[in-house]
Amino acid sequence: MESTNNRRGFASDNNAGVHPEILKEIISANQGHVVGYGDDVYTRQAAQLFREHLGEDTAAWFVFTGTAANTLGLAGVTRSWNSVITAHTAHIQQDECGAPEKFTGCKVLTVDTPDGKLKPELLSKHLHGFGFEHHSQPGVISITQTSEMGTVYTVDEIKELADFAHEKGMLLHMDGARIANAAVYLGLPFRKFTTDAGVDLLSFGGTKNGMMYGEAVCFLKPGLSPYFKYIRKQGMHLASKMRYISAQYIAYFRDDLWKRNASHANAMAGILAEKMSDVPGIRITQKVQSNGVFAVFPRGVAEEVMKSYFFYSWDEMTSEYRLMTSWDTSREDIDDFVRLLAEVTGKRI
Amino acid sequence: MESTNNRRGFASDNNAGVHPEILKEIISANQGHVVGYGDDVYTRQAAQLFREHLGEDTAAWFVFTGTAANTLGLAGVTRSWNSVITAHTAHIQQDECGAPEKFTGCKVLTVDTPDGKLKPELLSKHLHGFGFEHHSQPGVISITQTSEMGTVYTVDEIKELADFAHEKGMLLHMDGARIANAAVYLGLPFRKFTTDAGVDLLSFGGTKNGMMYGEAVCFLKPGLSPYFKYIRKQGMHLASKMRYISAQYIAYFRDDLWKRNASHANAMAGILAEKMSDVPGIRITQKVQSNGVFAVFPRGVAEEVMKSYFFYSWDEMTSEYRLMTSWDTSREDIDDFVRLLAEVTGKRI
Amino acid sequence: MESTNNRRGFASDNNAGVHPEILKEIISANQGHVVGYGDDVYTRQAAQLFREHLGEDTAAWFVFTGTAANTLGLAGVTRSWNSVITAHTAHIQQDECGAPEKFTGCKVLTVDTPDGKLKPELLSKHLHGFGFEHHSQPGVISITQTSEMGTVYTVDEIKELADFAHEKGMLLHMDGARIANAAVYLGLPFRKFTTDAGVDLLSFGGTKNGMMYGEAVCFLKPGLSPYFKYIRKQGMHLASKMRYISAQYIAYFRDDLWKRNASHANAMAGILAEKMSDVPGIRITQKVQSNGVFAVFPRGVAEEVMKSYFFYSWDEMTSEYRLMTSWDTSREDIDDFVRLLAEVTGKRI
Amino acid sequence: MESTNNRRGFASDNNAGVHPEILKEIISANQGHVVGYGDDVYTRQAAQLFREHLGEDTAAWFVFTGTAANTLGLAGVTRSWNSVITAHTAHIQQDECGAPEKFTGCKVLTVDTPDGKLKPELLSKHLHGFGFEHHSQPGVISITQTSEMGTVYTVDEIKELADFAHEKGMLLHMDGARIANAAVYLGLPFRKFTTDAGVDLLSFGGTKNGMMYGEAVCFLKPGLSPYFKYIRKQGMHLASKMRYISAQYIAYFRDDLWKRNASHANAMAGILAEKMSDVPGIRITQKVQSNGVFAVFPRGVAEEVMKSYFFYSWDEMTSEYRLMTSWDTSREDIDDFVRLLAEVTGKRI
Repeated sequence: MESTNNRRGFASDNNAGVHPEILKEIISANQGHVVGYGDDVYTRQAAQLFREHLGEDTAAWFVFTGTAANTLGLAGVTRSWNSVITAHTAHIQQDECGAPEKFTGCKVLTVDTPDGKLKPELLSKHLHGFGFEHHSQPGVISITQTSEMGTVYTVDEIKELADFAHEKGMLLHMDGARIANAAVYLGLPFRKFTTDAGVDLLSFGGTKNGMMYGEAVCFLKPGLSPYFKYIRKQGMHLASKMRYISAQYIAYFRDDLWKRNASHANAMAGILAEKMSDVPGIRITQKVQSNGVFAVFPRGVAEEVMKSYFFYSWDEMTSEYRLMTSWDTSREDIDDFVRLLAEVTGKRI
Repeated sequence: MESTNNRRGFASDNNAGVHPEILKEIISANQGHVVGYGDDVYTRQAAQLFREHLGEDTAAWFVFTGTAANTLGLAGVTRSWNSVITAHTAHIQQDECGAPEKFTGCKVLTVDTPDGKLKPELLSKHLHGFGFEHHSQPGVISITQTSEMGTVYTVDEIKELADFAHEKGMLLHMDGARIANAAVYLGLPFRKFTTDAGVDLLSFGGTKNGMMYGEAVCFLKPGLSPYFKYIRKQGMHLASKMRYISAQYIAYFRDDLWKRNASHANAMAGILAEKMSDVPGIRITQKVQSNGVFAVFPRGVAEEVMKSYFFYSWDEMTSEYRLMTSWDTSREDIDDFVRLLAEVTGKRI
Repeated sequence: MESTNNRRGFASDNNAGVHPEILKEIISANQGHVVGYGDDVYTRQAAQLFREHLGEDTAAWFVFTGTAANTLGLAGVTRSWNSVITAHTAHIQQDECGAPEKFTGCKVLTVDTPDGKLKPELLSKHLHGFGFEHHSQPGVISITQTSEMGTVYTVDEIKELADFAHEKGMLLHMDGARIANAAVYLGLPFRKFTTDAGVDLLSFGGTKNGMMYGEAVCFLKPGLSPYFKYIRKQGMHLASKMRYISAQYIAYFRDDLWKRNASHANAMAGILAEKMSDVPGIRITQKVQSNGVFAVFPRGVAEEVMKSYFFYSWDEMTSEYRLMTSWDTSREDIDDFVRLLAEVTGKRI
Repeated sequence: MESTNNRRGFASDNNAGVHPEILKEIISANQGHVVGYGDDVYTRQAAQLFREHLGEDTAAWFVFTGTAANTLGLAGVTRSWNSVITAHTAHIQQDECGAPEKFTGCKVLTVDTPDGKLKPELLSKHLHGFGFEHHSQPGVISITQTSEMGTVYTVDEIKELADFAHEKGMLLHMDGARIANAAVYLGLPFRKFTTDAGVDLLSFGGTKNGMMYGEAVCFLKPGLSPYFKYIRKQGMHLASKMRYISAQYIAYFRDDLWKRNASHANAMAGILAEKMSDVPGIRITQKVQSNGVFAVFPRGVAEEVMKSYFFYSWDEMTSEYRLMTSWDTSREDIDDFVRLLAEVTGKRI
């Protein structure tokens, strides 16, 4: 293999590798034969863990990617004439190349929101035409926790949205690609701000927080999606060697690995933001409530810094960038990055 | 975890675990950060290996499952008004829950074939209506190598089908979920019976032959599918931590691991079939050319044997069953299974 | 307009024009304003007529084309992981360019049948894998009455298929693009061989029997498709000026216009077949039970005759052709055609 | 039939009937047999008329509904990973029950616009991620002429949008369900503000302006959609008796029937708006540039007026209503309506 240094950076939490405890569990599951496609002890145990964390009625189905978790989960609770309402910044709107529309046939409707979070009063423009066959029927409100802007919904905010959705005959979906970071920020078990807050459908992520691959579509109420096994298979996400996803979730929940990883990442983001805000010319644009830091850079700075550290532009217009910490971010990584940033910025402004 | 014995059996080659060399490579790739979604050195190296094995024009794209490899690959070379012609027994017809139809919009047409293999003369019933807008336009002929019946196409048979397809303005797709077993049987490098034989599109499997997950959609000619990156992403199969698929393929090609695994599995199937055919009342129904053994059992026998060894019914009407060997099948496994089979059968007939 | 003679021929019953009584009703409905999209007195009256002809539980929904009636009707009673089983010759298989697959996502499975008619024993090859998520779930058996080969199912044959479908938890769909011709042949009211025989879903055609456009998707049992209004609209087949379809059906049912038209067409086909069978070298291949005549022509004959009369090849291999009569076919048309046919054939054989 | 008075009103221009000249042409086309599915002299003549009105490169394809014209036309120039950008108020967003998403798989993106018209500067929020596989690729800008708010784009405004689209590698689609009303307002031939202004794809409506049914998908540049014949058929909109759509367009273009009808409707809207604005308490909210009048009514007024005249609410929040005139609106209709409106409003305010 060509030599690589695999330097840690702040481009994305999924640029990080796999936590050793996850890997160890995969290795441990790698013995002998088990029936494929999920009819195995690892998967049964993992499903049980989801029931413990999210409530007894939880039906957890493993898929490979976050896009699949969102898209197939939504397919499980909609028909093609429904609409799904979400934030303009949502992953299902910006980052899934239209997978939800293609697979579900639904319309995805958006509202602008400065911090990535929805509120009932923002949604009214899309809540009309109920029962009118010309109009896609509003079916689901979809929120992201933590949001794509790194912000976190409180329990009350979620409850308010869930009640609002249910009053309208709609469901509440949570894209939990970074749900662990939210749990850590809120200081609450998963259940408190999902099932107990009225969420119906949850995409429970793990990959961004130290897993290798695999996400869980969780229906939190009984009978929500009776045919989901067909949807997952027709959706091309039934894993033959399912045990290797299941084993990861077993490790993820053991000894609160999810919490240790997310706590670390969140703490690192706090430090990163603090140090960055000391750099003259850098402006932090969002509250740092999880493992993402959003900041406006002086023009030209990012291009220069990216020669050493790749990361993503968030808004080219405003020169805003997104930096993500992960379970393996070290203080040295931060120091090194901020030193470089200060150096480049100093030259620019 | 509840205790498990994970006993090896003959239900499916994907009930087997992951080969240690694969796992070792995954561990080796698990260091530091690399850019997600495939822009990394492991993926570049794996792509290069595919070019070495299948020809310089090969574009290999990794996805998670065999169903995705087939479905998304077909999506890459069709439009929704095309048809795909295949064997009645084909995986895309029987075992993908309609994923190809749902995602591509194409019609899948089938012909009956006793050994799972297509021949040009079988296809004529579907080859009409070219240019006639009422009729789905024949676009692809899809074969499986090795076939779902364990049989293997010769190079000449493939060439004949490829020429036939191209004459009609169609393409030839090969579902190579078990392509390594075919290569071993034929004693040929992959390229000889794929690219060089005229195959256009190949689903190159690894999971059934010792990998953990991940299959490759391989376009074997330049320019075949210029927009495939969007298809894979919208198809929900763009892996964030791509390196862990790529690393597996690196190990898979190193020191011919694919060949060692498949040779072993094929050899074991030969022994299994031979020993089974010695059991009075058991009739082997297909040539054993790879790692599958098809056999008719006396009524009631399978149910009894399955109490110890789970395996799959192939045809309930005829009491035909499928047994698969894998990279980790041992002679003891075979002896033990055949002993039990003989015992049960002895009581029944 | 360039001058046209619009000569009557035998290419298709939809090459014929609109019956004067239909046109008169359209004109009669063309006064003032009525609410669009079906909330009008004409549509209510037409819906009532369908209930009278097919039973009180009938929900009739108008669409524009036969392909839409089949596709949207099937969408109304399936989910994308279902399969629809039909004859190889069926319109949904051969003549809808994959519309059912594209819109419903379902798999269409076929069986070969010499006369275009299904029987339970032919279907067994597709009736497996119930509850098995890898396999498209058999959902609907679809028959065509009259079949694409001009043959007609008896009431008992339909009942047998309906019972068979229901035992398997499936539904029976009838493509009734030429249902009037079948009713005339059977000498029965529509209801006797549809609703009363156990048919669940009916595409009730009119265009081929003297209407201008418009077909009806008829759900024959209560609650079969509660969301069909959305399916029709999302399926692009909600007519704004619905009254002009409805008015046609009002005329179609008045004074048994449907029966007069179909009786005439059937009778003409009988005469045509009889006269053609007197021509040496012509062989009638299917029973003439409706308005279609299938015949094998000596090589070269059809090409010559088509210089005067366009009609369609049915099977190029066997030199089989299809001739259709219509509500406006005259005896002179037949005499003229057969005279020409005899002349050309005489020269050829 | 139950007696109906079919009173003319202002609910919608498609509540009006068919213009006598259209009906006469249908009757005239109703003689003898012509080949189905568009291979007939009427359709050839109609296609030629479209070339005369829109330019020699125009390929006009007839479908049944406006929703189909928009959806299938967009399908003709997109792939599923594209996005289509339009106004929040657009028909494809509000009134097609998600047909575009379901059939094309594309994402529909919207911007808010007070008058229903797009401008380049409004679109920037959606114009990013080109070439980035995570993001739906911006493919088409879709405008409505006249807009759903009754406003009309000038030639310059259209040119600006077309240039803007083309610079980005995108196409410009015009939903011309009411294109005749725009042509009349602008005082220009169709071509000047479509083909000549850079529009690529046009849905050319006729139903709302005196036709019975049938719209035309017009590709205005050569080679834009080479496979559209399959898209229309698979999209369930290939008419068997095509001549009856074609004949309508022949009449529509003859002696400028389209212009006479639209001029009348526009003039009536002007009068209606003027008279309504004299009613104290009524506020006209949009410029009246075509045949629609938008007005805010005092609370409770509309409900009362609707007992005599049905019409549609546009925005329940603001008590805004839409009134449409049509080719057959008379001055007496307006006087009668305004008299009633004044009477009810007088009691309310």
